[in-house]
Amino acid sequence: MQDHLSATFSALADPTRRAILARLALGETSVSDLAKPFDISGPAISRHLKVLEQAGLITRGREAQWRPCKLDARALRPVDDWLERYRKLWEERFDRLDDYLRELQAQGDGENPKDAKDRNKDRNKNRKPKEKKRGRKT
Amino acid sequence: MQDHLSATFSALADPTRRAILARLALGETSVSDLAKPFDISGPAISRHLKVLEQAGLITRGREAQWRPCKLDARALRPVDDWLERYRKLWEERFDRLDDYLRELQAQGDGENPKDAKDRNKDRNKNRKPKEKKRGRKT
Repeated sequence: MQDHLSATFSALADPTRRAILARLALGETSVSDLAKPFDISGPAISRHLKVLEQAGLITRGREAQWRPCKLDARALRPVDDWLERYRKLWEERFDRLDDYLRELQAQGDGENPKDAKDRNKDRNKNRKPKEKKRGRKT
Repeated sequence: MQDHLSATFSALADPTRRAILARLALGETSVSDLAKPFDISGPAISRHLKVLEQAGLITRGREAQWRPCKLDARALRPVDDWLERYRKLWEERFDRLDDYLRELQAQGDGENPKDAKDRNKDRNKNRKPKEKKRGRKT
């Protein structure tokens, strides 16, 4: 059986399913309204909805006539939590790029590149640690 | 052809591939060292690496003897950007849960629930907008 995080990533690995989620982010809607903008068959839409439902990304109403689809954005939190450890890696890369560009600029200004580098180091040392994105955990 | 974001999500939809990325987050390494902790064949590891490489999540060195694998965390930024619009939805849900729990608590304290609700409203009104996670865009 697929683990839950894999099921979530797998459900997101399709542009139609992501478009369905984007539509549902605006509010709940019926399957027929949901299908309108897509040039695909009813059964194909139903299959996409089933994948999203199994990943916990949407819920379906229980009324026989009107079974609205509703986004459950909480199912995306594990993806965000998984990303967390990698976020600092790409941010570091951008910080290093910043430093490099500043050094290049200092060279253009006729400054000793070493001075620019040391100044950047001081700047980074005094920089406040990045604020944590959110404090709560489920 | 699969769009790039779908390829990234698809590459992440496998626990072995996520474990490979977690290992590479510690530093670059050879394929044989990378394969050690996994109880799967060399060809299977190679297939996983190919999927990760095609999604831009890893790069391979070009030396004939030693082709180290290296994480490229920047390839995860589009996933983070995609999540952004949904982040506020699950945060709102948690804010509403907070309010509800405070109302329940106020009821337990013998306070008029309406007063607690109004106080929460004021509190939310005065709350500073959440700081944006980062200011840069590629």
